[in-house]
Amino acid sequence: MTAHEFDLLDRAWSDITPPAARRMLIAAAAAFAGRGYHATTTRDIAAQAGMSPAAVYIHYRSKEDLLFQISRIGHTTALDVLTSATGPDPVARTAAAVTAFASWHAEHHTTARVVQYELGALTPEHLAEVVVLRRRTETAVREMIEDGVASGAFHVPDTRGATLAVLSLCIDVARWYQPAGHRTPADIGSLYADLVLRMLGA
Amino acid sequence: MTAHEFDLLDRAWSDITPPAARRMLIAAAAAFAGRGYHATTTRDIAAQAGMSPAAVYIHYRSKEDLLFQISRIGHTTALDVLTSATGPDPVARTAAAVTAFASWHAEHHTTARVVQYELGALTPEHLAEVVVLRRRTETAVREMIEDGVASGAFHVPDTRGATLAVLSLCIDVARWYQPAGHRTPADIGSLYADLVLRMLGA
Repeated sequence: MTAHEFDLLDRAWSDITPPAARRMLIAAAAAFAGRGYHATTTRDIAAQAGMSPAAVYIHYRSKEDLLFQISRIGHTTALDVLTSATGPDPVARTAAAVTAFASWHAEHHTTARVVQYELGALTPEHLAEVVVLRRRTETAVREMIEDGVASGAFHVPDTRGATLAVLSLCIDVARWYQPAGHRTPADIGSLYADLVLRMLGA
Repeated sequence: MTAHEFDLLDRAWSDITPPAARRMLIAAAAAFAGRGYHATTTRDIAAQAGMSPAAVYIHYRSKEDLLFQISRIGHTTALDVLTSATGPDPVARTAAAVTAFASWHAEHHTTARVVQYELGALTPEHLAEVVVLRRRTETAVREMIEDGVASGAFHVPDTRGATLAVLSLCIDVARWYQPAGHRTPADIGSLYADLVLRMLGA
């Protein structure tokens, strides 16, 4: 994880206190992204956070609890980003939502990868909580498309299929995005807003 | 890995001989997909293939060599699938290519995940070989779009951006596809062909 990404997470997760708990969560995200959840030990995470292995258990019940917190916060934040666009025009609202959601997946690609690829490591109870957040995200996109169809602005033969594709397109930015590449998160956001409006027949 | 997926890989990789080498590669793909490359040992792979740990080294130099073979074969096959559509009409050719490429990523989601998410574990030499295959894949999609633009069938303001999005959309099928879901690989293929043609302004 680069210093830029560390600072970004440190600001994004500023309401996680005390700072030691936040530092540990950032260290866990970096370690899971680097070598995968199963190959990471709480000892690795403590070392990366500059703390003792025992200190982890002051703030988190287990390694899985760290993953769950990252997943819960990641899904909640992404959902907030997606639904922050308001206004009466479905086309403008969809463009704004896709711009924000796709850019977020570029900017936060390290956490987004952990959140998306390590779902299988959550306990059934934690997975159930995350699935609720994922359904809300899907519903938010579907309702946005339905609003556009109802107003006559969008022409979509399969609303659920289009919902799936819009979400997938934005989420997969986290896989291919490279900070050294020539497209910035903002560039990707506007490219994708245009492509999604075309997909929706706007 | 389900019995269906095992049979699928056993057929898809039938030119890998002797059968012991093939069985080992399938076991490695299943193990990497399940717990990640770094958390898997050659001992785990041997056990899953029903062989002795030493038997792995008769066929492969290392755990990384197994990953490289999976990655090389996966990328080569996906590229073949993508470029198997021929014919003079760019719209029909693009629809056929996207149908085949998206369905392949559903059907082969286990291997596709390993191929896409574990690139960082390859040696620099092996990564360089895989990057050549990835560039060819990208070129195939870009040229298909350019043909459509040249013929007047497609209207695309940013060809490289559209190329990125088409590839991303199809590849990410491997992440969200669930064999128990109600959309079959063929359904996903035709849904995506339609969405891509809209994106390209066909």
